[in-house]
Amino acid sequence: MILKGPLTADDPFPGQSRRLRLGVIGGGRIAATQAMAARMTDRWEIVAGALSSDPQKAVAKAADWHLDPARSNPSFAALAEAEQKRRDGVDAVMITTPNHLHFAAAEAALAAGIDVMCDKPLTNDPDEAARLVASAQETGCVFAVGYVMSCFPMVRQAREIVASGALGRINQIHVEFMQDWMTPDSVAEADHVKWRLDPAKSGRTSCTGDIGTHAAHLAEFVSGLGMTDLRADFHVCGAPKPLEDTVFMATRFEGGVPGTLMATRLAPGNRGGLRLRVFGSKGGMEWDLETSERLKLNIFGQPDQVLSRGHGHGVSPRTERLVRAARGFPEGIIEAWANLYTEFALAVAARRDGVPSRLDFPDVFAGAAGVRFVEAAADSAEAGGIWTSISEV
Amino acid sequence: MILKGPLTADDPFPGQSRRLRLGVIGGGRIAATQAMAARMTDRWEIVAGALSSDPQKAVAKAADWHLDPARSNPSFAALAEAEQKRRDGVDAVMITTPNHLHFAAAEAALAAGIDVMCDKPLTNDPDEAARLVASAQETGCVFAVGYVMSCFPMVRQAREIVASGALGRINQIHVEFMQDWMTPDSVAEADHVKWRLDPAKSGRTSCTGDIGTHAAHLAEFVSGLGMTDLRADFHVCGAPKPLEDTVFMATRFEGGVPGTLMATRLAPGNRGGLRLRVFGSKGGMEWDLETSERLKLNIFGQPDQVLSRGHGHGVSPRTERLVRAARGFPEGIIEAWANLYTEFALAVAARRDGVPSRLDFPDVFAGAAGVRFVEAAADSAEAGGIWTSISEV
Amino acid sequence: MILKGPLTADDPFPGQSRRLRLGVIGGGRIAATQAMAARMTDRWEIVAGALSSDPQKAVAKAADWHLDPARSNPSFAALAEAEQKRRDGVDAVMITTPNHLHFAAAEAALAAGIDVMCDKPLTNDPDEAARLVASAQETGCVFAVGYVMSCFPMVRQAREIVASGALGRINQIHVEFMQDWMTPDSVAEADHVKWRLDPAKSGRTSCTGDIGTHAAHLAEFVSGLGMTDLRADFHVCGAPKPLEDTVFMATRFEGGVPGTLMATRLAPGNRGGLRLRVFGSKGGMEWDLETSERLKLNIFGQPDQVLSRGHGHGVSPRTERLVRAARGFPEGIIEAWANLYTEFALAVAARRDGVPSRLDFPDVFAGAAGVRFVEAAADSAEAGGIWTSISEV
Amino acid sequence: MILKGPLTADDPFPGQSRRLRLGVIGGGRIAATQAMAARMTDRWEIVAGALSSDPQKAVAKAADWHLDPARSNPSFAALAEAEQKRRDGVDAVMITTPNHLHFAAAEAALAAGIDVMCDKPLTNDPDEAARLVASAQETGCVFAVGYVMSCFPMVRQAREIVASGALGRINQIHVEFMQDWMTPDSVAEADHVKWRLDPAKSGRTSCTGDIGTHAAHLAEFVSGLGMTDLRADFHVCGAPKPLEDTVFMATRFEGGVPGTLMATRLAPGNRGGLRLRVFGSKGGMEWDLETSERLKLNIFGQPDQVLSRGHGHGVSPRTERLVRAARGFPEGIIEAWANLYTEFALAVAARRDGVPSRLDFPDVFAGAAGVRFVEAAADSAEAGGIWTSISEV
Repeated sequence: MILKGPLTADDPFPGQSRRLRLGVIGGGRIAATQAMAARMTDRWEIVAGALSSDPQKAVAKAADWHLDPARSNPSFAALAEAEQKRRDGVDAVMITTPNHLHFAAAEAALAAGIDVMCDKPLTNDPDEAARLVASAQETGCVFAVGYVMSCFPMVRQAREIVASGALGRINQIHVEFMQDWMTPDSVAEADHVKWRLDPAKSGRTSCTGDIGTHAAHLAEFVSGLGMTDLRADFHVCGAPKPLEDTVFMATRFEGGVPGTLMATRLAPGNRGGLRLRVFGSKGGMEWDLETSERLKLNIFGQPDQVLSRGHGHGVSPRTERLVRAARGFPEGIIEAWANLYTEFALAVAARRDGVPSRLDFPDVFAGAAGVRFVEAAADSAEAGGIWTSISEV
Repeated sequence: MILKGPLTADDPFPGQSRRLRLGVIGGGRIAATQAMAARMTDRWEIVAGALSSDPQKAVAKAADWHLDPARSNPSFAALAEAEQKRRDGVDAVMITTPNHLHFAAAEAALAAGIDVMCDKPLTNDPDEAARLVASAQETGCVFAVGYVMSCFPMVRQAREIVASGALGRINQIHVEFMQDWMTPDSVAEADHVKWRLDPAKSGRTSCTGDIGTHAAHLAEFVSGLGMTDLRADFHVCGAPKPLEDTVFMATRFEGGVPGTLMATRLAPGNRGGLRLRVFGSKGGMEWDLETSERLKLNIFGQPDQVLSRGHGHGVSPRTERLVRAARGFPEGIIEAWANLYTEFALAVAARRDGVPSRLDFPDVFAGAAGVRFVEAAADSAEAGGIWTSISEV
Repeated sequence: MILKGPLTADDPFPGQSRRLRLGVIGGGRIAATQAMAARMTDRWEIVAGALSSDPQKAVAKAADWHLDPARSNPSFAALAEAEQKRRDGVDAVMITTPNHLHFAAAEAALAAGIDVMCDKPLTNDPDEAARLVASAQETGCVFAVGYVMSCFPMVRQAREIVASGALGRINQIHVEFMQDWMTPDSVAEADHVKWRLDPAKSGRTSCTGDIGTHAAHLAEFVSGLGMTDLRADFHVCGAPKPLEDTVFMATRFEGGVPGTLMATRLAPGNRGGLRLRVFGSKGGMEWDLETSERLKLNIFGQPDQVLSRGHGHGVSPRTERLVRAARGFPEGIIEAWANLYTEFALAVAARRDGVPSRLDFPDVFAGAAGVRFVEAAADSAEAGGIWTSISEV
Repeated sequence: MILKGPLTADDPFPGQSRRLRLGVIGGGRIAATQAMAARMTDRWEIVAGALSSDPQKAVAKAADWHLDPARSNPSFAALAEAEQKRRDGVDAVMITTPNHLHFAAAEAALAAGIDVMCDKPLTNDPDEAARLVASAQETGCVFAVGYVMSCFPMVRQAREIVASGALGRINQIHVEFMQDWMTPDSVAEADHVKWRLDPAKSGRTSCTGDIGTHAAHLAEFVSGLGMTDLRADFHVCGAPKPLEDTVFMATRFEGGVPGTLMATRLAPGNRGGLRLRVFGSKGGMEWDLETSERLKLNIFGQPDQVLSRGHGHGVSPRTERLVRAARGFPEGIIEAWANLYTEFALAVAARRDGVPSRLDFPDVFAGAAGVRFVEAAADSAEAGGIWTSISEV
């Protein structure tokens, strides 16, 4: 048994009798962030990689990552094959390649019985996404997707508040993700940006798939309502670009609840302006990534409330177990990633222990839903902004 | 001469050799607020009224307002007739009746050569609005409209910043007005609310005409760009109501600049959530009624800035002359109204002195533009949210 | 009867059958602010003045104030004498001269049976303050003092919260008043500043008497505890000056509750940084003049709360009756002054009607307490910062 | 060579050819936090421990930490002895025992040539602190102290701003650390709290040594000025306790700059209320742990500024190299600890490589200064709050 105790809904998470073994596919900045988080949990050790298709780069990167050179691979296929053969092979891989490579890398891992943590959007193509869902179900592998925003303690608390009925019937859902780093015209030409605007790598959308999906997932995760329809206008606000840098949507959720969604990278003064607002018949709620540790809550007729993690104060034990630092000592996005890597570890360990696990981390279904959201947005925008249903499977 | 000095673009406003005489048409809460502001300026004395069509109420209200009973009138028509005959008749009237009565009251005043301050929306009908524009031009009377949000010092400063080019080419304009007082189902039945939801009094829209117009005017006033097209979805979020309580729009401004506009009264936790965001190729700006004395400004690549009125600190003399309280001592909406009543007084005095005045207060053209905005929104929403042009005249 | 209804603890304030008549002694910027507030209430008309000891200036100022020239006086003595003889003489005077003249002006008014609103500090000398207390008691005149900070709705609410016991036993009281306008060395030489640094006019202290007294009064008003002891260090932080521009204190309140008090005018980035924090065994509270409409409250173990005025939401009827603008529409310091002038009007009217009034506005006792606080601070600082008792009478 | 490149003042930090080996002395919550940070850097592996003096607990904890049982030791002495003998012995230890054990543990490590990261306060006794300074100098070992607040990017930026002269001559320094977790009377009896109030373990002070030292170090670190004198009042605000839970101070820094310092654990509504304000002749600055990623800056006469890390925007390369997450994605205290463990790793590696390093992390001198600050505070408070010099060595 890897898990040292039972997994319950509200108790602190159990420890592990050993660290799980993680392989890294794609070795850029996003991988580095997730690796920091995985290490922070002390539930993972990073032991193998496919860090670059360029052999020389691969050697240098393996050294940077302190990997055994024998476990540095030239491709994800090679990694899957080699690790599958080892008695101490990886339990899971993280996939942080450009979007168009996610599918093949994930398929290779699943085929080798390796659990998967894949960056979002899951794929550029809904069919590929559907095939990953099927593969995950067939293999029984754990499959997590990097919708990390859902792993902030206060976002979890927000979800609990909606579920408790404290806001009454949900009336409106507004979400926006506003960044500003693409403001200078020149940025679109920078190397680390170019692929995001290249339809061959990024798919039919850029901003929508990249940050719009975070916004859509957050809205669904907290409200507990699936988005059913949308209409989208795509805009290129700054220098000409092959794909949109800005999107505005009207949205509709289960039960006909109306909403709006915006995403842009040309909003000077906004860095991580991911803001969710949920309004109901009894109260309203607001969360903002830039002040991620505070959840604003208003029950109509009462004073405004600000919830923050730590030592009770209206925050549930289920939320509190995601907390690392003492009350008042700030946490951030790497801790949110660490929450995702903690829950992923627990699910991986539970699978290997042969015990069930029910956890709240975003999975392959959430990943595929995001791909269908992007597809519907692109369809709507191409058709001039008409109402478009998000396909259900 | 009433004005004691010249009116320039940037100097402090001149004093007056006498107070101007103001009549009050409609004697409810909005009139009370505007009266406080008018008195605060010490440029006006309130000397006549048509405070109620119920004779008994009219007597009681005249006493509350400390009016000479002889100048308390049973109707706006009677007021206009009586005051026109007096040597010391009113210079101007404020009109704060329900919307559907604005037109007749304003026409009566203009016909009597009396200057007008009319609440918004100017009328429920674009034709009536156009006729008021024509009457104002024919009579040469001063005609102000109560878009008071444009009279906050920091809103004026925001307009100057856009005009200076500091934000570069405008790329996006977002504005929203979120309130929460209509959250309880029962509110829709309250007396002071009912008329706002009655199409006979409020026109084709409720929320759109009442607070959506504030949002639209603010966006145009600060950006200096007219709104040309929109598409609107109307929603009833809470208890069933004859008119919308919530509206979401996609908008387009001159030069094709895209934007969004939202207004709702069912957003618990928002009281005066009128927020404007303007993003350009060099910088962005944000203003919020709930923190009306702070203007957030970001020039891309520089630290965020927060501008506030008082003693320089990056605020222009033109803005500073609208300031009453010392730096750090807060001002609010009554002071914004007082700014409007100050500029209105200066324009009225200038007309009577026979000198020109160019001031920034919202006038009958702005009022008529607001009515056309409401009309386009109602047309669009009825047609299922299609793009609709705002008529130009 | 001037009052149109009874004065109760919680009901809206009654109207008046006539406006009260106010005379203005001292015609500078502070008078202008208070006059705006008085006019806003519509409970006062300003009918007489002693606006300048320079006859030519007095004439010009009387015209600016739209005063009858016959009621513009060369001195407060002349004003008191002239108005006392009139049947329609002033009911009250506001005194906003430099500090050293308050005493004589107030004595003259009281001797003439005229009610008094006097700026703070009441006097530069505790004996003079004690004599004003005696005169007020002997004459039965109403005597208000301009501790306007106690007239913000959320400060009143704060006082109610302490009185309700919601914070438990008070453990600590911290208050500071931080401004920045004296930062540039040159300011100390400006005309409107010079008298504040001149011991002949400003007394033994500058910053302490001017803004330190606001801080001390606010702390006592909200906590309901008198300050009994203090030790003070005076500092001159910028250019050399005859009096302190900065003061730090340790304080002690009734029951031995410890606290701190700071005041300075050389804190760049602070404009109206008057901040009060009260901590008790069950909860804590924070109010800041720069965000005057929000009161932060924490009951230990619960989420933070933010109270704001308007439509209930945890704010008492007693507080709400001080509110003029609708929820979400900001109010400011002029409205706080208007609250003071409203309560002052009610008290003046009640005296003339021969009915009792119990209201919360700051009176001559509060004014005298402030003078004794300044005296103790100056004594302590001169003695090197030793603990010094604030004399009780 | 462990370091893969040169250490300069402003360039990104070099990588390492191997992870450094860390031993853990004391295995509680503070150790867990620091371990997360050390792992996040990927510059350390935790290979040995003295996690408990209770043999059974030690075994269980070693498993929790995934330690080789052979390297789990019953005492710090045993750890030092055993590791010293190994070819792959630890490069450094972290010491997070109760305060009274720091000295002996650190001495043992230094004697074995092992570098030290010790929690603050360094010791309870100034003489012990002085001996550690001497030992560190004699052995040449690297000695870091856990003043982690100095490792937030915006605190580093604040220090640079003062050093640049942008604030002019420093006039005032205010710092406070306000927490609320000791508000309930019962807390003082909790096991993890008791030792903090026990003079035998915590020394002459509780709150002063524990969080007051953070405040003092932060003030000195940012201002670049040493604190020379203080006077302190100790208070017990809630339930009776053997040591103070609250301290208020007047302070004096080099050049006679005046300031204040407060620390308390009974301020309901404050969790991590560590706030520093520095005011100078040209500008002022404010930093607050609860909003650790924003630095407020005002240059007098200009708009307020808010600096935040990421992509320039007025933040120096020297600060930026401490940044892990993309702009707008929040970081927190564990990242600040990771900055400290990064700089500590670089210094340890440099010593082993035989190359010089000059880094900004808090060292044994800062640690000893903190102990002398506590001593002076206790002396002053005992003497009734008299001015007391902080001894220089």
